[in-house]
Amino acid sequence: MLRKMFYPESVAVIGASADPRKLGHTILKNIIDGGFSGKIYPINPKGGEILGLKVYQSIIDVQDDVDLAVIIIPAKLVPGVMEELGKKGVKAAVIITGGFREAGNEELEEQMLEIAKRNGIRVIGPNCQGINNTHHQLCASWPLITLKGRIAIASQSGTVAAALAQWSQNDGIGFSTFVSLGNKSDVDEVDIIQFFSEDENTAVIALYVEGVKDGRRFIEAAKRCKKPIVVLKPGVTERGAKAVESHTKSMAGKDVVFEAACRQSGVVRAKNLEELYDFAKAFAYLKTFGGERVLIITSSGGSGILAIDVLESNGLNVFETDEKLKAKLRELVPAHAILDNPIDLTGDATAEMYLNVFKASFDYADAFLLIFGDPIEGAANAVIEISEIAKKEGKTVVVSFLGGGEIEREEVAKMHKHGIPVFPTPERAAKVLVALKR
Amino acid sequence: MLRKMFYPESVAVIGASADPRKLGHTILKNIIDGGFSGKIYPINPKGGEILGLKVYQSIIDVQDDVDLAVIIIPAKLVPGVMEELGKKGVKAAVIITGGFREAGNEELEEQMLEIAKRNGIRVIGPNCQGINNTHHQLCASWPLITLKGRIAIASQSGTVAAALAQWSQNDGIGFSTFVSLGNKSDVDEVDIIQFFSEDENTAVIALYVEGVKDGRRFIEAAKRCKKPIVVLKPGVTERGAKAVESHTKSMAGKDVVFEAACRQSGVVRAKNLEELYDFAKAFAYLKTFGGERVLIITSSGGSGILAIDVLESNGLNVFETDEKLKAKLRELVPAHAILDNPIDLTGDATAEMYLNVFKASFDYADAFLLIFGDPIEGAANAVIEISEIAKKEGKTVVVSFLGGGEIEREEVAKMHKHGIPVFPTPERAAKVLVALKR
Repeated sequence: MLRKMFYPESVAVIGASADPRKLGHTILKNIIDGGFSGKIYPINPKGGEILGLKVYQSIIDVQDDVDLAVIIIPAKLVPGVMEELGKKGVKAAVIITGGFREAGNEELEEQMLEIAKRNGIRVIGPNCQGINNTHHQLCASWPLITLKGRIAIASQSGTVAAALAQWSQNDGIGFSTFVSLGNKSDVDEVDIIQFFSEDENTAVIALYVEGVKDGRRFIEAAKRCKKPIVVLKPGVTERGAKAVESHTKSMAGKDVVFEAACRQSGVVRAKNLEELYDFAKAFAYLKTFGGERVLIITSSGGSGILAIDVLESNGLNVFETDEKLKAKLRELVPAHAILDNPIDLTGDATAEMYLNVFKASFDYADAFLLIFGDPIEGAANAVIEISEIAKKEGKTVVVSFLGGGEIEREEVAKMHKHGIPVFPTPERAAKVLVALKR
Repeated sequence: MLRKMFYPESVAVIGASADPRKLGHTILKNIIDGGFSGKIYPINPKGGEILGLKVYQSIIDVQDDVDLAVIIIPAKLVPGVMEELGKKGVKAAVIITGGFREAGNEELEEQMLEIAKRNGIRVIGPNCQGINNTHHQLCASWPLITLKGRIAIASQSGTVAAALAQWSQNDGIGFSTFVSLGNKSDVDEVDIIQFFSEDENTAVIALYVEGVKDGRRFIEAAKRCKKPIVVLKPGVTERGAKAVESHTKSMAGKDVVFEAACRQSGVVRAKNLEELYDFAKAFAYLKTFGGERVLIITSSGGSGILAIDVLESNGLNVFETDEKLKAKLRELVPAHAILDNPIDLTGDATAEMYLNVFKASFDYADAFLLIFGDPIEGAANAVIEISEIAKKEGKTVVVSFLGGGEIEREEVAKMHKHGIPVFPTPERAAKVLVALKR
C-alpha cells in the first residue's frame, strides 16, 4: 500500500522555492543532490525555474503520472492542493507543513483528511520532517543523508528521528528509511510496522511513539511483523502523559497497558533514547541466542565488572570458569591474566588473545561480551573472525570499545563497516545482550 | 602530603627506554612533550641518552633532589629501586609495573610497601596507568593529554579513567588531574579526596573504586571534602562482587552499606560509567538549587516529554504554567508554540526565543532545562547570557542538544569552551538536574 510513498518513480515538491533559506528549497535540493533517479517536479504558482528544473504552476499541469507529493505550503492552502492531488491521481503525500491539530486547528486537519480518504491518498504528517529512503536515494527531508543502512526509523518527534539518524551517520552504519510521522493523521505506527515488515532493505524497526491509536491493531501488526521492533514511548509519569497530549494530541494511555502489549507481541521496549538507538543497532545485525551463559573477555577488569552487574541483575549468567577451561586458557594468555569470568587479559591484551580465548571457550558459553579497554590494534579483524564463527553456531557476540583513543576510532569504524555493532560502554553493551535475549 | 606527587619540581623515570614501543619510552616522551617545566631524569642501567636527555644508571647518581619517581621496570626489581629512592630521599613514587598482588604476588607488594613506609615514600599503584596533572603540565601516563580542566579523575580501573579522559577531551572540557590508582597499595580514595579537596585546580572529584578500604575514614573524608564527589562503585550483584575480588583484591562489601555511606557523607553515586562522567561534568560547572520547580524550554516536544518522565519520577516538579505566564509568553513566541511546561517553541525556534522565554519565566522556576532539538544557530550565545543571569540568583540551567548536525557540533563546542556543560540526550540532562538537586 505504501510502496508509492517510499519507492516513488516520480515526486512533486509542492511549495518548491528559489529562496535557499526556505524548506521548500532545501527539500527540493536534497531530493536532487541525494541522487533520486525518478522524475522531479517543482510546483509553485510563480513558475519559472529552480535548481535547473522547470517549475509547474500546479500539479495539474504535469503531463506524466506523479507517485508522491511532498507538501510545504501554508496550512490553509493544503486542502485545495489535496483536491488537486485527487484530480491528478496522486496516491501518496508527505505534508511537512505545521499548523494543524497540534496548533488547535483540528478542523483543518479533518478537512484535509476527508479529501485524502475520498481520493484514496495516503498521508504522512502533517507537521513532520519528511521521509528519507536511502536505498531509493530519496531524501525528501533534511539534512541530506545518503548512507544506506538497515534500520527503519519512524518517529512522532522529528528531533528523536534526527538524533537517531545523526548517530547512525556518526557510527557509519546509516539507516534504511527515516520517517517523521508528525501528527499521524493517516499513516501511523501500524502502517509503518506492516510496510517495513516486508521492506527488503530493512532489518529492524525503531519506533518513537507518544501514543498508539488502536492497541489491538498494534499488537496484531507487531505479532505478524517479520522484523524485530524496538519502541520508545514516553508519558510514563502523569505529567509526561499530559505533555503528550499537548505535543501531538495523542493519548499516552496507561503505561502498564502498553507494557503488557509490548510483552504480548514481542516488541522490545527501550527505556530511553540511547537504548532505542542501541537496541535498533543491535537487532539490525545480531540475533538472539539460546541459553543464558555469557562469557566476558576483556582487557579491563573494571569494565568487565560493570558489565556483570547489568547482566546478572537481568537474568543472564556470568558463569564461573571451571578448572578444565582455565587449564586450556593458561596456555594462551600471559601469566598475570585472570582466568575467571570475566577473563581479564589486562592491558597487554592483543587482538590475537581475544581470538584464541574465544575459540578455546566456545563450547562453554551461549553469548560472548568482548570488551576492548585499551588501544588494541587489529581488534576489528579478530572480531570479524570471531563473529563469523559464532554466527554459524547460533551464538551471539557483542562488542564494547572504550578508552582506546585514535586506535579505538579506527577499529570501531572498521567493525561498523563490516556490520558489527560496537557500544561505547560496557553497561550499554550488556543491556544489548539482555535485550537480544528477551 | 601528596604535593610532591602531583606538583613535583623534578621527576625521575626509572626504566626509561630508548625503544619507542616500550612504556618506559612513551611516558618519558609524554612528560617531555607535555611541557613539564621541572627537571627530568631518565634512569636506566644502560646509561647513554634518550630523547636528548642524559640517562643516569641509578637514581643515586642524580646530583639534585628528586621529588617524584615514575617506575616502569619488572616487578621483582621494584623493591631494590624503592630502597634506592629511600636513600635518595625521594618521597613520592608512581609504580606503573604490574605483577604484584593482582597477579597473586602479595608478598612482593608487601615487601615494596614495607620499604616505602620505612622511608616515608608515598606510592601510587602498583599496576596502574600513571598520573597526569594538566595544570602542572605533568603527563606521567598515556596517551598524552594536555587540555586543562576542572575534574579530578581517580580510578582503580585504568580503562575507566582513560574513557573519562577521552570523553573530556572530545567535549573540549579536559580534566585537572588523572590518577590511575591501580592496586591502591598505599594512596587510596581517602588520600585522593583529602588532596583534591584542597587542590586549587579541581572543582569536582570523579572516583571509580571497586572497594573502600576503611568505610569510616571514607565517610569522614567525604564529609570534610570541600568539593563535590561523584563515585561509581560496581559489585552490586554477587557475581560482580566476586569479580571485584579477582580484579583488584578489593572487598566490594555490602552494597547497601556503601549506599548508606554515600548518603550520609553527601557523595553522589553514579549508576554507570556515563553517569559518572555526566555528573562530574555537571558538578564541575553547575551548582545545586533551592526548590523543585523545573521549567523545560525546548524546540522538540518529544524531547521535552522524555525529560519530564525522568524529572517527575525523581521528585522534581515540572509545574504547569499559569495563565499569567502564558499571557506573557504569548507575545514572545510563534502562535503555534505550546505554552505548557515543556514550553515547546517547535522547529522554528530561534536562540532569541529561548532567551526571551527564559527571562519572562525567570521567577516561576528554580531550575531550567533547555533542550535544543534542531540546528539552532546562536544557541551558545543565548545560553551564555542565560547562564549568567541564572547564576546570579542561585538558579541552575542544564542544557541538552541533539539532532542538530553540524550546527549542533559548533554550538556545543562553544558552550563547553565557556564552561557550560551540554548533554547529548534529554534524559541524561534530566538525570543531571536530579543529581544536582540531591
